[in-house]
Amino acid sequence: MAAKETTAKPATEKGLDSLFEHGLKDIYYAEKKIYRSLPKMIKAAKDPELKLALEKHREETSGQIEILESVFEMLGKRAKPEKCDAIDGILDESNSLLEDFGNTETSDAAIVFSAQAVEHYEITRYGSLVAFAKALGLNDAAAALKQVLDQEYATDKLLSSMAESGINRAAA
Amino acid sequence: MAAKETTAKPATEKGLDSLFEHGLKDIYYAEKKIYRSLPKMIKAAKDPELKLALEKHREETSGQIEILESVFEMLGKRAKPEKCDAIDGILDESNSLLEDFGNTETSDAAIVFSAQAVEHYEITRYGSLVAFAKALGLNDAAAALKQVLDQEYATDKLLSSMAESGINRAAA
Repeated sequence: MAAKETTAKPATEKGLDSLFEHGLKDIYYAEKKIYRSLPKMIKAAKDPELKLALEKHREETSGQIEILESVFEMLGKRAKPEKCDAIDGILDESNSLLEDFGNTETSDAAIVFSAQAVEHYEITRYGSLVAFAKALGLNDAAAALKQVLDQEYATDKLLSSMAESGINRAAA
Repeated sequence: MAAKETTAKPATEKGLDSLFEHGLKDIYYAEKKIYRSLPKMIKAAKDPELKLALEKHREETSGQIEILESVFEMLGKRAKPEKCDAIDGILDESNSLLEDFGNTETSDAAIVFSAQAVEHYEITRYGSLVAFAKALGLNDAAAALKQVLDQEYATDKLLSSMAESGINRAAA
């Protein structure tokens, strides 16, 4: 959590810009880790539609990492990830679910269960970041982050419909 | 590909019922931990409306724990929490944010940022659990869990509107 570049300031001087920058570094770390985690899920997915959706999402994630880098640039900051305990925990849980259910007929349902937890983490963070950017008058940053937020919503919706239209029933 | 209605499976095979039970134990652990974590956030909140909303949410969380216990009962199972790495990570991050921003004018924005990550974790889990219960034909359990899901959505929406209507601007 320690921001290296800040020279010991009194705590009272930490404004929303500081929380915004923290949030950006946090989600930058998260996206990079998600990108590295997706191949394991893709490999485990049995339903071809699910496999394809996860592959598409991995490509999208790569683009989102670039968008985040452009937002850092807009702020005149170097893109720098910061360890995010939340995504670490979500992905640890996803891994242990894959170990528990990976070789069962419930594996696809477990993959969707995990992937949606990741999506919702991204939705909450991008939602907050868009609101922070707007409050800070950073309209270009807000627009770029909103574009990613919309992609995350779309992925979550797609996963929900896949679960409800067949994957859960196939596992039941 | 939809399988026909539930066919008896050997106990060694992990079906959707097993993932459903895992998910229930996971969110039961999460709700109990959230209940214990909220007082720290409530104490740190400066905006009286935010403080009140978090207090109300803590009461609601207590009711949600009871609803989860009733769902375990419907399944003829003992209510039992199971360590959830995801909520542990989300709350660890929330604590370190509170340490970093707790004494600044950004503290309320940081609290909302954290509280919404918790809400979204609950939304994704209850969303999946409702879908699992429906696929398993457990309509009473689905209805009970849907009731909690709706409460989580309402809390998240309230937090968003508080952030956008003043808390973020006050911190900017």
